[in-house]
Amino acid sequence: MIILLKYGASKQDADEIVGQISSMGLKPLYMPGVERTVIGAIGDERVLEKLHLENHPAVDRVDKILTPYKLVCRDLHPVDTIVSMDGVLIGGGNFIVIAGPCAVESEEQMLKVAEIVKENGGHALRGGAFKPRSSPYSFQGLGIEGLKILNKVSKITGLPTVTEVVEVHDVAAVEEYASAFQIGARNMQNFRLLKSVGQSRKPVILKRGLAATVSDLLLAAEYIVSEGNPNVILCERGIRTFETATRNTLDLNAIPFLKKNSHLPVIVDPSHGTGVRDFVEPMTKASIACGADGVIIEVHNDPKNALSDGHQSLFPEQFASLMRNIKPFVLAAQSQR
Amino acid sequence: MIILLKYGASKQDADEIVGQISSMGLKPLYMPGVERTVIGAIGDERVLEKLHLENHPAVDRVDKILTPYKLVCRDLHPVDTIVSMDGVLIGGGNFIVIAGPCAVESEEQMLKVAEIVKENGGHALRGGAFKPRSSPYSFQGLGIEGLKILNKVSKITGLPTVTEVVEVHDVAAVEEYASAFQIGARNMQNFRLLKSVGQSRKPVILKRGLAATVSDLLLAAEYIVSEGNPNVILCERGIRTFETATRNTLDLNAIPFLKKNSHLPVIVDPSHGTGVRDFVEPMTKASIACGADGVIIEVHNDPKNALSDGHQSLFPEQFASLMRNIKPFVLAAQSQR
Amino acid sequence: MIILLKYGASKQDADEIVGQISSMGLKPLYMPGVERTVIGAIGDERVLEKLHLENHPAVDRVDKILTPYKLVCRDLHPVDTIVSMDGVLIGGGNFIVIAGPCAVESEEQMLKVAEIVKENGGHALRGGAFKPRSSPYSFQGLGIEGLKILNKVSKITGLPTVTEVVEVHDVAAVEEYASAFQIGARNMQNFRLLKSVGQSRKPVILKRGLAATVSDLLLAAEYIVSEGNPNVILCERGIRTFETATRNTLDLNAIPFLKKNSHLPVIVDPSHGTGVRDFVEPMTKASIACGADGVIIEVHNDPKNALSDGHQSLFPEQFASLMRNIKPFVLAAQSQR
Amino acid sequence: MIILLKYGASKQDADEIVGQISSMGLKPLYMPGVERTVIGAIGDERVLEKLHLENHPAVDRVDKILTPYKLVCRDLHPVDTIVSMDGVLIGGGNFIVIAGPCAVESEEQMLKVAEIVKENGGHALRGGAFKPRSSPYSFQGLGIEGLKILNKVSKITGLPTVTEVVEVHDVAAVEEYASAFQIGARNMQNFRLLKSVGQSRKPVILKRGLAATVSDLLLAAEYIVSEGNPNVILCERGIRTFETATRNTLDLNAIPFLKKNSHLPVIVDPSHGTGVRDFVEPMTKASIACGADGVIIEVHNDPKNALSDGHQSLFPEQFASLMRNIKPFVLAAQSQR
Repeated sequence: MIILLKYGASKQDADEIVGQISSMGLKPLYMPGVERTVIGAIGDERVLEKLHLENHPAVDRVDKILTPYKLVCRDLHPVDTIVSMDGVLIGGGNFIVIAGPCAVESEEQMLKVAEIVKENGGHALRGGAFKPRSSPYSFQGLGIEGLKILNKVSKITGLPTVTEVVEVHDVAAVEEYASAFQIGARNMQNFRLLKSVGQSRKPVILKRGLAATVSDLLLAAEYIVSEGNPNVILCERGIRTFETATRNTLDLNAIPFLKKNSHLPVIVDPSHGTGVRDFVEPMTKASIACGADGVIIEVHNDPKNALSDGHQSLFPEQFASLMRNIKPFVLAAQSQR
Repeated sequence: MIILLKYGASKQDADEIVGQISSMGLKPLYMPGVERTVIGAIGDERVLEKLHLENHPAVDRVDKILTPYKLVCRDLHPVDTIVSMDGVLIGGGNFIVIAGPCAVESEEQMLKVAEIVKENGGHALRGGAFKPRSSPYSFQGLGIEGLKILNKVSKITGLPTVTEVVEVHDVAAVEEYASAFQIGARNMQNFRLLKSVGQSRKPVILKRGLAATVSDLLLAAEYIVSEGNPNVILCERGIRTFETATRNTLDLNAIPFLKKNSHLPVIVDPSHGTGVRDFVEPMTKASIACGADGVIIEVHNDPKNALSDGHQSLFPEQFASLMRNIKPFVLAAQSQR
Repeated sequence: MIILLKYGASKQDADEIVGQISSMGLKPLYMPGVERTVIGAIGDERVLEKLHLENHPAVDRVDKILTPYKLVCRDLHPVDTIVSMDGVLIGGGNFIVIAGPCAVESEEQMLKVAEIVKENGGHALRGGAFKPRSSPYSFQGLGIEGLKILNKVSKITGLPTVTEVVEVHDVAAVEEYASAFQIGARNMQNFRLLKSVGQSRKPVILKRGLAATVSDLLLAAEYIVSEGNPNVILCERGIRTFETATRNTLDLNAIPFLKKNSHLPVIVDPSHGTGVRDFVEPMTKASIACGADGVIIEVHNDPKNALSDGHQSLFPEQFASLMRNIKPFVLAAQSQR
Repeated sequence: MIILLKYGASKQDADEIVGQISSMGLKPLYMPGVERTVIGAIGDERVLEKLHLENHPAVDRVDKILTPYKLVCRDLHPVDTIVSMDGVLIGGGNFIVIAGPCAVESEEQMLKVAEIVKENGGHALRGGAFKPRSSPYSFQGLGIEGLKILNKVSKITGLPTVTEVVEVHDVAAVEEYASAFQIGARNMQNFRLLKSVGQSRKPVILKRGLAATVSDLLLAAEYIVSEGNPNVILCERGIRTFETATRNTLDLNAIPFLKKNSHLPVIVDPSHGTGVRDFVEPMTKASIACGADGVIIEVHNDPKNALSDGHQSLFPEQFASLMRNIKPFVLAAQSQR
């Protein structure tokens, strides 16, 4: 930990801080400069944090040296984590396509979409039963009924399923009916929910929040893993910026950053990341090219009449085309791992 | 609703959309231009939304005309809402100061801080029992024990209390022990939680999310009010931008915007909005000057040893100074209402 | 143009605006709703803009229908523009790599780097003679001397050259010595400079500003083209967001957006877009995959001793590896055009 | 300067860097930790910058200790700078109102507006002769003719004038005809232009760029002052964020930050900062309350027919009301300096 004192801080202030560091059994380094004084402290930063040195009125800035996410960082765990979602392996060299509608609307709809996903080589099925919506007047999902439909369609088609959980109370039901949890962008820092899915052993797709840095995302993953569940899949789905031409700004820089700094698998959601169905195929290819382990995509049997997010859902023929067109990119990426 | 068709959309596409609008009993307006066609639809936009016209492949853009937040907007409810928090009135001309530590740490600490708040003319006490923290390794609050301390201190001092609720499961306990709920920035779109506090009649301080537009904030308030709880207090607490010199960017433009577009009271949190204790007083004065109904401020009896957010907590003497120095600004603002 | 009146606007206000539209020889459409009134106006929006209807106190919002960038938009010019940079064609199916140091430092350095670029199959050479730097105390470039070095190295190696121009006064010199102008991110809305390079016929690489929307970028291109220079190459180089893990947030969504909405070629700068040399190769591949026509990359013979941007410059062996590794992605992309 | 090495960096890397620091005559501090190594370097950071240690492949991060803006920072220059604009003093306790139209449109218009400004107690007149506009098809200003009008109106009314300069070539003309230069947000990092006005001794109002941090703003000011012109007035005018309810997000946190870290006067532009004429008065009051030295405001004799920015220009009666209503806030602020 590096502690930068304010301009004009007294020797007494410096001594007080140096003394506090020593009192915790750590080694302080006193570095008086011409204009400012810097104090270094070598050792476990969790111990140092208890000193709350940033609160001291003579302290200008505290810079941490070590990553705050110990369990999910690659420095200490160099080998890629591979997560199994009912037998579909995510991470470690495969490229996985999870596809399906924004929301479970009916058994008939889910069966139709699942057929489209399966026929074209998709690996798993997505579909929301609990829908977080900005307006209280929008369609809110079918709830438990939706989970049951998803479960039934999974049994018929053999596709593993992913669905969002929005509340601690529903964790048990989602665990019963689905193959994997999704934590949505709005709940990335719903820490109780993170701890709750951390007590399961089912895979968790953790979506990045709209205003979350990649460091925040890794800390949220640390919440889940520190509860005992190592099966976390990180998901870049776009952040909120000043650009309004697309629904969000898909931050693909995050892919090489996360792959370099964490051993967890990383997927991309180009449907929410762009909000425009025509951009889903190019951004899926880009995700492959920069090292993602998969994508999660919205496809609907009848997007014109979808109850939510229809404008960003692929038409069946678009999905078929996407699955064909990504193949040479997947091969190119795999040849260079 | 204004529907802009894509360049090159066919007459058949336009006819189909016009037909759909008519079929809902609404009046379509067909406006063919030289380059593009525009279709207008007059009537209840909630009905129109069911058509999901934005999903249609020939549609480029759908612009809504009416505000989506009906209950909280001022157009239809011109009179200011005044919320009573155990007798302290928020809105309608008063300027209220809610103050206290980031977290409830002990009964002794809360009593000391409450004395400081009361002596200097503060109106209510804040203090977190459930703390959402970015890292799983940071102090997470005292939980129910913290609520009980808060309640006891409230009885001793007579100050109403505000505390954050982070989970549906805890709503009943917070309702029992505190005067008002706080919904934190990270939970602004935790819709289950919003609905749950919407079923109470206790005041709710709703903080703006880090990436939430003012429109998102009003829609979140609509969730609460549409469940039956009209006692919502909006809170600007800074948004996340590229600027890193301050912890967040306090968006004071939001104050006149919210006062103009909603009848709900609006307060400001300059402690989180700046993250720097020296900026709390100037930004409190600025909040008064642009029309806020109050502030919520972090103050601690011993900020150097605070367990969380000590660097942005006021020292007791700073709080006393702030309470003195804001007086002429409060008078100036009240004289011009 | 769609004009939305404020809640409570009078019939008289509406009549006034309808009358103004008619007076310009255009056809107004009056659409009174239950809560609000909407007025449509069909016709040339440049004529309508002269009415400045957004200034009217009864007007809430004016939504434009037509794109404001007529010359660069694809609607009216469906065929891809191909720009020749001294014989190297950009746009229309090739993938071009422009590479070189951030700054021209000496003839020896430029020759070494140019050799590296050429040997590995790069198509053109970059290098700054005029360097805009955030601090007045940083290296500001060699100026005219740098241009001459660039020109000499171009003659020796046969590589076309790109260099930044920062001032109207220097346009003539850059035109004399280099194959193409670069307009840097900070000058994207330096309209005098845009007009000045618009009077040349040499290619212009126009970099997107840090806070520029894609629409702003296209309007900036319109400035150049409307002066008579059709040879504009758009360049995505990252925008400024709250994320600090990378120097900028590379907005690859912009690539399919720009290719769809404009006929101009689009390239990517993954060096500035990430600020991290290890991320340049993955983001180059991603750029290829989502449809870019090329990249502009920083490479240096000795990055450890580079005078500027060394941390994001590729080592020679990294550049060689990148050129090898992108090949299958380029082939995959070309096979699907 | 604090140099953090990458995880796994070798002792040899550390020795190399330590050696480089010593070779510059500075004192290195070697701090090996359990997980990572930190190297400190005490001394003039401008010397250290020449080592370009951030380029070294073993270096993860370089944190600077000292502010990079030496001339404009308060640490070394504690006394407030007061700038005289033809006798009107900015900084040091006054609150100055500069007002006028977005653009000079005609002599008649400027005279009318100047009368309104003067009658109501405004201190100086603004008006653009060279207008940077996003679209090449928008009104671009009257140029030199506009400067002459401004000058004539200044002589008639006695009001000092501020006008934007957008190009080095025009600096001499603006210097001849106006009392002060304005550098617009789009040109905040047009370093040639900054150097050019730095060679004048006339006051420069330097507007913050849309994506500029407060540190970038201070570095831009440093460009001007380091050329010899100490008469710089900083201007907060809103930054670009995801919020679209207002034209920009006015960052009033910047006011106490800039006042604390720099001795230069700071003013606010609430017209561009909000883009909504009704919000100009509340945000002017907020600017006073948080410590600004003045505002620059758009007012027009006939906003409905203004050629640019009419929607954010005050009507004459609004300006009169603003000038009346700010008085108690100005008094409150002055009583506490």
